[in-house]
Amino acid sequence: MRIADIGEFPLIERLGQIIATERPDLLVGLGDDVAVLALPGDELLLATIDIQIERVHFLPHLITPEQLGARALAINLSDIAAMGGQPWFALVSLALPEATEVEWLEQLYRGMRAAADRFGVAVVGGNISRARSEIAVDVALLGRIRREQLLTRAGAQPGDQVLVTGHLGEAAAGLQLARHPEFAPDPSDRDFLLERYLAPTPRVPEAALIAGQQQATAMIDLSDGLSSDIGHICEQSRVGVRLWEAELPIPPAVRQVAGRLNQPAWQLALAGGDDYELCFTAPAAAADELAARVTRETGTPVTVVGEILPAEHGHRLLLADGQELPLEAAGWQHFRQ
Amino acid sequence: MRIADIGEFPLIERLGQIIATERPDLLVGLGDDVAVLALPGDELLLATIDIQIERVHFLPHLITPEQLGARALAINLSDIAAMGGQPWFALVSLALPEATEVEWLEQLYRGMRAAADRFGVAVVGGNISRARSEIAVDVALLGRIRREQLLTRAGAQPGDQVLVTGHLGEAAAGLQLARHPEFAPDPSDRDFLLERYLAPTPRVPEAALIAGQQQATAMIDLSDGLSSDIGHICEQSRVGVRLWEAELPIPPAVRQVAGRLNQPAWQLALAGGDDYELCFTAPAAAADELAARVTRETGTPVTVVGEILPAEHGHRLLLADGQELPLEAAGWQHFRQ
Repeated sequence: MRIADIGEFPLIERLGQIIATERPDLLVGLGDDVAVLALPGDELLLATIDIQIERVHFLPHLITPEQLGARALAINLSDIAAMGGQPWFALVSLALPEATEVEWLEQLYRGMRAAADRFGVAVVGGNISRARSEIAVDVALLGRIRREQLLTRAGAQPGDQVLVTGHLGEAAAGLQLARHPEFAPDPSDRDFLLERYLAPTPRVPEAALIAGQQQATAMIDLSDGLSSDIGHICEQSRVGVRLWEAELPIPPAVRQVAGRLNQPAWQLALAGGDDYELCFTAPAAAADELAARVTRETGTPVTVVGEILPAEHGHRLLLADGQELPLEAAGWQHFRQ
Repeated sequence: MRIADIGEFPLIERLGQIIATERPDLLVGLGDDVAVLALPGDELLLATIDIQIERVHFLPHLITPEQLGARALAINLSDIAAMGGQPWFALVSLALPEATEVEWLEQLYRGMRAAADRFGVAVVGGNISRARSEIAVDVALLGRIRREQLLTRAGAQPGDQVLVTGHLGEAAAGLQLARHPEFAPDPSDRDFLLERYLAPTPRVPEAALIAGQQQATAMIDLSDGLSSDIGHICEQSRVGVRLWEAELPIPPAVRQVAGRLNQPAWQLALAGGDDYELCFTAPAAAADELAARVTRETGTPVTVVGEILPAEHGHRLLLADGQELPLEAAGWQHFRQ
């Protein structure tokens, strides 16, 4: 059987059965995007790794090297942020064809440096290797958090509300515009959406604020798309969910792109992926105030987009017209058929 | 300018000027294979990353998936060991073409698990991504060490002796036998040397013992070859070195392969790379006893192979016939012309 025949998540589970270990200092291991280990004292160590491969995760004619360097760090910063953690340091592993230009590589490092400085993380080591064909930028990122502030995917309770930062579908719309130049949108919309795809902003200060309030019950970052990522919270928390289409923060420019694709805007917003916004849950009594506080202190909008239900309700999407659909985990998966 | 025109180490230095940061909790950063960070208390955190790419670092028809899994971990274990550290946990990033067989991948994980268990490290997370053509296995490994036991490349003093564990040139000879089936050596020699190339044993207990004695002054693992790796110690310690050909622990099977290649055995032993033995320095008064103790407690031979000199002597090789040559850093470099 080939890995293309099994799908990413079943594959990970199968390999987990071989490699997973239990240790007293390991609080969260395989199956989450971030491993959590006990440090001396009351601090925890957070560790994650994620790769950007040419023509799989990025198109070299579309992304500048500065953007690629920043993006390779940002997607990992987003994972550390989603646990509430402070990013600490990064290791960078590069695989490069021999024809790679030194100047291109220096620009990649400048982009990485800018993102590192902005979010208070240091690149402390790495490795450069020859590749035969494709550029790959692999980043391992370590973070720290005080034990009582850790936010995992397990912890959502029926009655909690589901919140997201920022807007949904912008990155997916940007990617679609790159694929379909004939859509010819307003140039400023085009530039903005494309930038949202190419140069995502990890929600590090927002996440620290959410974790610091100790009211949120679970958190994840939106890398694969809300429909898929909220599924991880539901699975780990053993709960169900109902998202409300009418509340999804979908900007007009995203609705336009969805219209050109002849698909409902919620589909692009829920399944598109690459937004790197935060999705978190909080008791209904605390949700509005928490959302308002994050917006007040960071300027980032936060929206209540649904509710956590008992597990037997499954995963639902309540459309604006009152119809209810099963919410399919339609986000990005490697190796999916 | 292309990266192939500049060479690996100058390239790393150039990128270091863009990305290097100074922070009070960062004891060793870019330029070493391992970053060293202060943890709460008197412990240090060690962090390294190294990749294995198909047809760059391994040939898929030559190495079994179990060997590849173990090797991807071993080359990182060797780096952590060379600081005297205890390996703690690993993150694994895999890039896989869609046609990869699930069974092949499971065997890779079994090999990784066996190496992890043997050396007391846990694989706690990772990432699986689609690749377009080549398999890549990237491993980030974290370790810990008590502050007073840290061994870096800086610290060697004129008058110190240079010691190595195990034998030199076996891995390089194994690779040459794989390339030259017409050499037709004794089959048991062939199997042994090939195994030394494909399935290196990181010297974790030996390194812990050496660091624990607090007599060694510098240490490095032999990944590129002794002539290149001792150069890193000399550069960081600002010293020179004289290696003694007559003392190099080169087994007869390696000498045979060198003979078939029409090159001196010391060349294969010094420039071959991939041995993953330890090279360390210690004051002459302590060297013999330290060597004997490591051998007694681990069974691994340790040999004095040279002496540290003041920097102005440069890097020398004293041949068995009394002639002295400049010791060229002739080891493995990516992108070298």
